[in-house]
Amino acid sequence: MESHYTQRDDTICALATAGGSAAIAVIRISGPGTFPVLEKIFCPVSKSKDIKNLKGQTLHFGRICRDDEIIDEVLLSVFRAPYSYTGEDVAEISCHGSVYIQQRIMELLMSHDIRLAEPGEYTMRAFMNGKMDLSQAEAVGDLIASQSQSQHQLAMQQMRGGYSDTMKNLRQQLLDFTSLIELELDFSEEDVEFADRKRFLQLIDEIKTETGKLIESFKTGNVLKKGIPVAIIGKPNSGKSTLLNTLLNEERAIVSEVPGTTRDVIEDSIIIDGVSFRFIDTAGLRETSETVESMGIEKTFDKIRQASIVLYLFDASQTSLEEVKKELREFRQNIDSDQKRFVILGNKIDMLERSPKHFSELVEMETIFISAKRKENMTMVTDSLLRSVDQEKLETDTVVSSARHHDALSKALSAIESVEQGMQQGIPNDLLSIDLRTALHHIGSITGDISTDEILGNIFSNFCIGK
Amino acid sequence: MESHYTQRDDTICALATAGGSAAIAVIRISGPGTFPVLEKIFCPVSKSKDIKNLKGQTLHFGRICRDDEIIDEVLLSVFRAPYSYTGEDVAEISCHGSVYIQQRIMELLMSHDIRLAEPGEYTMRAFMNGKMDLSQAEAVGDLIASQSQSQHQLAMQQMRGGYSDTMKNLRQQLLDFTSLIELELDFSEEDVEFADRKRFLQLIDEIKTETGKLIESFKTGNVLKKGIPVAIIGKPNSGKSTLLNTLLNEERAIVSEVPGTTRDVIEDSIIIDGVSFRFIDTAGLRETSETVESMGIEKTFDKIRQASIVLYLFDASQTSLEEVKKELREFRQNIDSDQKRFVILGNKIDMLERSPKHFSELVEMETIFISAKRKENMTMVTDSLLRSVDQEKLETDTVVSSARHHDALSKALSAIESVEQGMQQGIPNDLLSIDLRTALHHIGSITGDISTDEILGNIFSNFCIGK
Repeated sequence: MESHYTQRDDTICALATAGGSAAIAVIRISGPGTFPVLEKIFCPVSKSKDIKNLKGQTLHFGRICRDDEIIDEVLLSVFRAPYSYTGEDVAEISCHGSVYIQQRIMELLMSHDIRLAEPGEYTMRAFMNGKMDLSQAEAVGDLIASQSQSQHQLAMQQMRGGYSDTMKNLRQQLLDFTSLIELELDFSEEDVEFADRKRFLQLIDEIKTETGKLIESFKTGNVLKKGIPVAIIGKPNSGKSTLLNTLLNEERAIVSEVPGTTRDVIEDSIIIDGVSFRFIDTAGLRETSETVESMGIEKTFDKIRQASIVLYLFDASQTSLEEVKKELREFRQNIDSDQKRFVILGNKIDMLERSPKHFSELVEMETIFISAKRKENMTMVTDSLLRSVDQEKLETDTVVSSARHHDALSKALSAIESVEQGMQQGIPNDLLSIDLRTALHHIGSITGDISTDEILGNIFSNFCIGK
Repeated sequence: MESHYTQRDDTICALATAGGSAAIAVIRISGPGTFPVLEKIFCPVSKSKDIKNLKGQTLHFGRICRDDEIIDEVLLSVFRAPYSYTGEDVAEISCHGSVYIQQRIMELLMSHDIRLAEPGEYTMRAFMNGKMDLSQAEAVGDLIASQSQSQHQLAMQQMRGGYSDTMKNLRQQLLDFTSLIELELDFSEEDVEFADRKRFLQLIDEIKTETGKLIESFKTGNVLKKGIPVAIIGKPNSGKSTLLNTLLNEERAIVSEVPGTTRDVIEDSIIIDGVSFRFIDTAGLRETSETVESMGIEKTFDKIRQASIVLYLFDASQTSLEEVKKELREFRQNIDSDQKRFVILGNKIDMLERSPKHFSELVEMETIFISAKRKENMTMVTDSLLRSVDQEKLETDTVVSSARHHDALSKALSAIESVEQGMQQGIPNDLLSIDLRTALHHIGSITGDISTDEILGNIFSNFCIGK
């Protein structure tokens, strides 16, 4: 069967900048046909320049022409294989950002048998040509999609190598041992030991520790990447939708406004100090009148289960201490709350005539008194959300944020544990070898030393065209 | 009074590509602070590179850093004054196209006292530094806004010089004569003639011819730029809204679909073979049921007055020849139709049992029988629209498409006619000089030899930021 993901020798083009009208747009060409097509469509202002022999890493002003018609005056960036993003010959045409011009140039390229790139194909080619490993290629997609500082940090860390080197190194050592063990098979009748069992067990231990640590870090990585899930719960009329709107609106207001850039604000998500928080199942809170909402107790439990942080809201002007305590008890009995943070919010303090001293008993848990409507004490709420994040860990440790990596690491760990167990039980080398090969496969799939069409397809099809 | 538009010595930055997430985005820096700021924020991969001394027209891979944090791995394009778009030191940072990264880099630049560029400020600086004249600067804006081939062609022609050279040359000659005439003033008692009156009259004639031709070309240029105005008129139930929708939908279907680029389709506008046609006042035709529409005769006249092409629609299955002739006569009596094309469309031929021979008398005018509903003979309608455009003229002649230029040319022509008249009447040189100066002023304002804050403000404030 022919693989879809192999080294390719055709030439591709795509718009690399965002669609729409702007000062400039960039069209990227990659492949062996890059310079031949430039010879046909690009006229440098300085006529003496020989396009075939333009040096890499240089810029050239000139015109893109179709027959006698000048389509645009452009700036051409030239890269020579292997010193380019894809490792192939690459040119970037920086043209005037009219959509009409973008289309005309793309059409012109395609009329010269330059194919439109598939999603992620530039990065895929970079991977195929050994410019980056698979984990780094994945990080490129994450980097472009990143919306908050923590997402950006995770992607950048992974793009710059992350745990690729560690994994590659451990895999190489494991591969060496596997070879030795398999060599022993050839000499099985002579009962020789090429592989030093003590050092081998040390290596297995090291791999277990390393993969275990990375698997554990996925908890942090995953929520940081997707946004930390927050549930807002409470009785009808406690002010849940007002609280949600106040939190979302404050975020909208502080979203950094550099003119000319617009950040897509994800619905029902806020970014505080670079960390993204995602509110769970806010549909019910979107009703125009909150009285309509009648969230059953089961639905509430459901929300709590999905959340890392639970904001429990009550109307401090209407609710008794006993009621609050009773409801909290109920949650605790039904939910394993060890992994979650409960924050109690006494709302509507603007309706109180005196200070909420009668709730003092709650203070042993984290309790904040607010007015969501009047936006009082809201900073205390956002500060409290932030306390769930171990910023330092994020900055210093290696964190796995890819579900694919987490899956591969888990499978590798399980295989390596089988190897360990097998050795303790003294199972034959040929059986040991099977588990070793499984472990090697899964570790290798992270960096792309091992890759299948399916893995590559899943990764690159999620990229945008032009990357 | 200090002028807002003067040579500036601060350094500016802006996002030059369209907003939103994409493979890459380009941030442009221009001004004397370009290299000093790059020294602070850019670390080339090859450490030996000395940023201060990077050569112009070269590309460099490296990192944008804020303190210890790596914001992105980028490609840096470097241009040295005066060999750049603005004529100043320029750098373009080609970063990963995440909105978050775009914002972070912009913030970083601004924290180093790089100011956000005003709309059109790069092009304005290019004008100020003599990289292009004002007419060319204006064309850059038109080029980016161009949606059709003819708009693109007009802008490209103007950007590449257009009639700037002719105007500059005529103005210089006129300036020389004006100096001589003004010199005669100093010798007024001696009755000498420095300026050869015969050659002077020849020049005036040449200017009159040239400006007259350009003023005349504005009729073509303006409609091509804005779209040729088309009116659809006819009795209720003749099928006007169906015709409009059929025309618009066919256009929607043929809009070239290069993936990754999206052309903003202007409402109620179609592009046929690169020429844009704009339907006038289609609001009435937008009612869900056409029977609601009851366009009075005055409104119909109004539409006809605004149009270059009038599509007169009648229901061929319900209307008698006499009715059609009567209505057409009425239009002709009330409207100066010399400048317009009337195209008669007999609609609903799908409802006819026999061929519309009884309308044969209409054939002396341009008449097409169609079914808008069944999309029959619609190509004949679009072909007919296209016949209004003198494509050849557009390709070979110089066409004025800027209302500002048209205005300046008209004023220059009027002043030069006063000069001519004055000479015939033998008015004193000092009065002649006033008209000459007026003519010089208006001709000069086209190319920007003469410019005021108001003129520059009007031009550049319509640009996007980043250009």
